[in-house]
Amino acid sequence: MFKASINIDLLKDSIAALSVIVDEVRLKISSDGISVKAVDPANVAMVVFDLKSSAFENYEASDVEIGLDLIKITDILGIVERGSIVDLELDSESQKLNLFFDGLLYKLSLLDPSTIRADPRVPQLDLPAKVVLNGQDLRRAVKAAEKVSDHVTLGVENNAFYMQAKGDTDFVRLDMTANELIDLDAGDACSLFSIEYLLDIIKSAGKANEVTLSIGRDFPILIYFEIANAGGSVTFLLAPRIESD
Amino acid sequence: MFKASINIDLLKDSIAALSVIVDEVRLKISSDGISVKAVDPANVAMVVFDLKSSAFENYEASDVEIGLDLIKITDILGIVERGSIVDLELDSESQKLNLFFDGLLYKLSLLDPSTIRADPRVPQLDLPAKVVLNGQDLRRAVKAAEKVSDHVTLGVENNAFYMQAKGDTDFVRLDMTANELIDLDAGDACSLFSIEYLLDIIKSAGKANEVTLSIGRDFPILIYFEIANAGGSVTFLLAPRIESD
Amino acid sequence: MFKASINIDLLKDSIAALSVIVDEVRLKISSDGISVKAVDPANVAMVVFDLKSSAFENYEASDVEIGLDLIKITDILGIVERGSIVDLELDSESQKLNLFFDGLLYKLSLLDPSTIRADPRVPQLDLPAKVVLNGQDLRRAVKAAEKVSDHVTLGVENNAFYMQAKGDTDFVRLDMTANELIDLDAGDACSLFSIEYLLDIIKSAGKANEVTLSIGRDFPILIYFEIANAGGSVTFLLAPRIESD
Repeated sequence: MFKASINIDLLKDSIAALSVIVDEVRLKISSDGISVKAVDPANVAMVVFDLKSSAFENYEASDVEIGLDLIKITDILGIVERGSIVDLELDSESQKLNLFFDGLLYKLSLLDPSTIRADPRVPQLDLPAKVVLNGQDLRRAVKAAEKVSDHVTLGVENNAFYMQAKGDTDFVRLDMTANELIDLDAGDACSLFSIEYLLDIIKSAGKANEVTLSIGRDFPILIYFEIANAGGSVTFLLAPRIESD
Repeated sequence: MFKASINIDLLKDSIAALSVIVDEVRLKISSDGISVKAVDPANVAMVVFDLKSSAFENYEASDVEIGLDLIKITDILGIVERGSIVDLELDSESQKLNLFFDGLLYKLSLLDPSTIRADPRVPQLDLPAKVVLNGQDLRRAVKAAEKVSDHVTLGVENNAFYMQAKGDTDFVRLDMTANELIDLDAGDACSLFSIEYLLDIIKSAGKANEVTLSIGRDFPILIYFEIANAGGSVTFLLAPRIESD
Repeated sequence: MFKASINIDLLKDSIAALSVIVDEVRLKISSDGISVKAVDPANVAMVVFDLKSSAFENYEASDVEIGLDLIKITDILGIVERGSIVDLELDSESQKLNLFFDGLLYKLSLLDPSTIRADPRVPQLDLPAKVVLNGQDLRRAVKAAEKVSDHVTLGVENNAFYMQAKGDTDFVRLDMTANELIDLDAGDACSLFSIEYLLDIIKSAGKANEVTLSIGRDFPILIYFEIANAGGSVTFLLAPRIESD
């Protein structure tokens, strides 16, 4: 069973974070909260998502797994008034999720979880550098890099974080010293990533006050931030690209 | 003759209400005000529109009928500053409507009224249920119904108004008890309507503080609301659809 | 050499004024400031642009000419935060313009000035009428004229400025008396212009508090306004069209 109430803005942010990577997810519901692990179709990005029961106004659940069409629920949540509370209730028999909001009842058909790609194994990575910065700063740097290239280098050198993109003619670079960052654990870090994926990730991460990047040398990057007023967290794991030149 | 002045926002709301149903109208102008009766090309919806002389800043008119291209006048009114007064004057000889606003004179060619479909006969309907609600509530319910189906049922049961739509997989329902409504005259009422037409109607009705729905069993619905600070009114009459299943 | 700092909003307004006419410009940089003269590809419109060193927060330059891709720099400046200061520095060796803003370094490749059309000769015109009006008034009149025609007449008669457009069916006219204008030097003035060019020009001129029009009879029009808090100025010169009827 699953019965819960949540502020629409927190619910929207949660769905938006998941939508970065996939269109359909298996939600693992337990008495502690909701969790998701998913990989994008190209196996380049992974998301690990947790929303604790404390993020909800009310929360009652036993272990159950449901399949959710993220595009459809995003469309529905678009008509909810800002600040409204959405009541969620699983109807196991009919395999529907009942959403009550603003006096309306919406019965949303669920997907059969067995038709959705199984949970990925999350690799244990020991990444040497850690950078904590404001989501807005990350967002601006990725947006600038997009102007010149389709890939970007993230790294740490001289006790500073940098992000750099080289195009055929132009060049962009952001440098942030330890002072300008929220936190920095310097280490050997320099990896190249696809801008396309980062552009999707910053739609969600760009709103966070603190985003933690864990970076290595030609290794995947971990992008971690909290959602729902610290009632949940999202980690994106993005595979590196190999520099051709 | 016709010579009048009106606040641009009231004029825009009036034109917008008419544009829901038709692109061209015959305006019947008299000393009391302006009235329109029109049917949409598919004969599914009708509008009865009245704007009293009291809605105008100044108003002088004798009986005359003019043909107006609603798309064109909507486009022109889009450049008027908010809050401006628009002076209207009919030039019968050249068959133009002169619009003065913001220091500009715009001479708009009128249509020959005889080329526009004649006024429909408005049926006298004795509908058993009457529901008065806020335009915003109606708007939200129609928007939600649109997510699941292309038709929606409106009715009254258990001393409450309801609106319900069933799609192939999903389902939406709004219930509003007498307490949640502005007013309710319960009666035998349950009819099915096209969402497409309701979506157009709520563009105009959705802004009204009070919308009165008169509903029967498999009968047309009347949707009535005031415009121009009670200086006018709009009634839409929408034919029911026959439920196939 | 060229090294300067400027408020992003002033820089954007400057680039926007130049973009009205051309996509690529030769910037003439000197110790006094920056100037541009350019003609549109169809030889219908000319722009004369000056931005004095006093419009900058800091300014150091010796004589140099650079070629700038206006579409590209407009795109880049779109990501700068409002109110930011942009530091500009010419790297003559690599033929790049370095832009520093919001902690980012953007190295923009310059164009070879010799590939950009040479500076036009600016004709000396002695135009009999001068009209000074608010940019917003000019903007509204051009927008209204666009509704009925693709050309518009500007002129002075009876000690008033007028703008008038005739379409196949409709007609628009703006009259502004000396009292409604900021200033008027009446004279023999009546010329026809392309709306298309005026629509582009008002994107920039429409924001100015004072726009000065110098008009003759079937002569080019001069449209002059200040930018960057009087730290610069823009003059557009637009060739007249010949009335066919």
